[in-house]
Amino acid sequence: MDFKYKIRTRYSETGQDGIIHHSSFVIYLEVARVEFFKELGCDINKLEKNKMFCPVIDLSMKYLKPLYSLEDIVVQVSLGDYSKVRFSLSYQIYREKACVATGTASHCFLNDSFKPIPIPRAVLDQFRELSPDPLQPDGAIISF
Amino acid sequence: MDFKYKIRTRYSETGQDGIIHHSSFVIYLEVARVEFFKELGCDINKLEKNKMFCPVIDLSMKYLKPLYSLEDIVVQVSLGDYSKVRFSLSYQIYREKACVATGTASHCFLNDSFKPIPIPRAVLDQFRELSPDPLQPDGAIISF
Amino acid sequence: MDFKYKIRTRYSETGQDGIIHHSSFVIYLEVARVEFFKELGCDINKLEKNKMFCPVIDLSMKYLKPLYSLEDIVVQVSLGDYSKVRFSLSYQIYREKACVATGTASHCFLNDSFKPIPIPRAVLDQFRELSPDPLQPDGAIISF
Amino acid sequence: MDFKYKIRTRYSETGQDGIIHHSSFVIYLEVARVEFFKELGCDINKLEKNKMFCPVIDLSMKYLKPLYSLEDIVVQVSLGDYSKVRFSLSYQIYREKACVATGTASHCFLNDSFKPIPIPRAVLDQFRELSPDPLQPDGAIISF
Repeated sequence: MDFKYKIRTRYSETGQDGIIHHSSFVIYLEVARVEFFKELGCDINKLEKNKMFCPVIDLSMKYLKPLYSLEDIVVQVSLGDYSKVRFSLSYQIYREKACVATGTASHCFLNDSFKPIPIPRAVLDQFRELSPDPLQPDGAIISF
Repeated sequence: MDFKYKIRTRYSETGQDGIIHHSSFVIYLEVARVEFFKELGCDINKLEKNKMFCPVIDLSMKYLKPLYSLEDIVVQVSLGDYSKVRFSLSYQIYREKACVATGTASHCFLNDSFKPIPIPRAVLDQFRELSPDPLQPDGAIISF
Repeated sequence: MDFKYKIRTRYSETGQDGIIHHSSFVIYLEVARVEFFKELGCDINKLEKNKMFCPVIDLSMKYLKPLYSLEDIVVQVSLGDYSKVRFSLSYQIYREKACVATGTASHCFLNDSFKPIPIPRAVLDQFRELSPDPLQPDGAIISF
Repeated sequence: MDFKYKIRTRYSETGQDGIIHHSSFVIYLEVARVEFFKELGCDINKLEKNKMFCPVIDLSMKYLKPLYSLEDIVVQVSLGDYSKVRFSLSYQIYREKACVATGTASHCFLNDSFKPIPIPRAVLDQFRELSPDPLQPDGAIISF
């Protein structure tokens, strides 16, 4: 399953070179990720009220084509590999049929003291439904 | 006393019209305000760790001249009127001798439940030192 | 006629106090304004390609209630007074029935050298249809 | 030679989880990059006035430690590999002695029609002075 989320680029996200600033693409990924998680039953606001956090550990972007102000784009999110404590998501940003950027990001879950905790059971169950065979073995030793 | 804080405008703060976006001026005011408060002995991080907040109640900006990327500006902050529960600050943004924008903003203090609380004693004492005669009488009835 | 535009607040627009940063409200006004102008037949991208600009001259905001991450809000835009060279817009931001913020902003039109030009005919015609009786007389002397 | 640039994190760059949003790190890299290029004699504003652009092609970040509001950080920039049409920069963000994030980004130069052009002679000369032996051979065929 690929999750898709539509966003309209904003005037304020442009720069003096006339195109959407590359940092705004990072925001688009997050906007789509938050909605993807809501779809999986994981509301980021509730999560954080319960003193759990899900920060970005690493992020990688490829910018293929410029985006302009007020364009309708679709951010496609798909689950990558995951272990019991870490997971990655892949992104493709489309303007109509053209892929304008791709990205991947890894995340973990942290408690109130910003110490790593296992991926919440309910989220992990959703991951298993989406992708029963993660490339990253459950027993992987993750250092961060 | 007028507090002055120097900021260099950022490339990412420009828009496709080639000038600094008007929303970034609002950020500049805040950057200067936070430093102004630190000068008064009030660290915003400590304040918020103590579950007190100091939001903007109202904001008013006049944009006089365009600002460009990578310009050195000075934000001048001065205390306006204040009561026991509310205060206002005035701002002037300068590029060398030219005033490029002015602004005013009102603030109050809130507790953890976002209910208004009196201005902390130490802050009020600082205000009185800066401006013994606030235009807004102490007993003013503030509704917000 | 009041124009309404729906926006979902973004996680990235929050601050460490847990609420949407006040500068993001300024972005919401712009997002709605751009769509309002499109509705009037004035596309900001085309306008700027034709080397005309429509900057904010002044801006005034009242923050009535905090907004949180991932809330659906409606920005209501209405035309205020206008002359041949300047106009103002009023905004109300709603979360369901609750007005969480109001704002007004004035604008003019500039040419390529950032010198004021009359409001383009087509836009002025639209304004006259929306509000035949602007409070600001056509002959007003505007200084900026 | 490593170029270093000091930045103070801003209140507005935090999120509701209490730490600096990961997208702001991307801005910090750019702020430092622009100053690094100025040091090399390449002013981004002049470049763009001459209708040349230097966009980000790809970007990769590792987030090692959280950053908080109003912290003084140092962004260290160093030249990576480069060819005649493309170059990469490496970044390390420090809070005192602690490296809180690392990043790399690749760039090319574009003309007015957003078509790739060779790296301007003066910039390439600076690169050669900094790093006479780029890993990426001059004749590399770059497709983007």
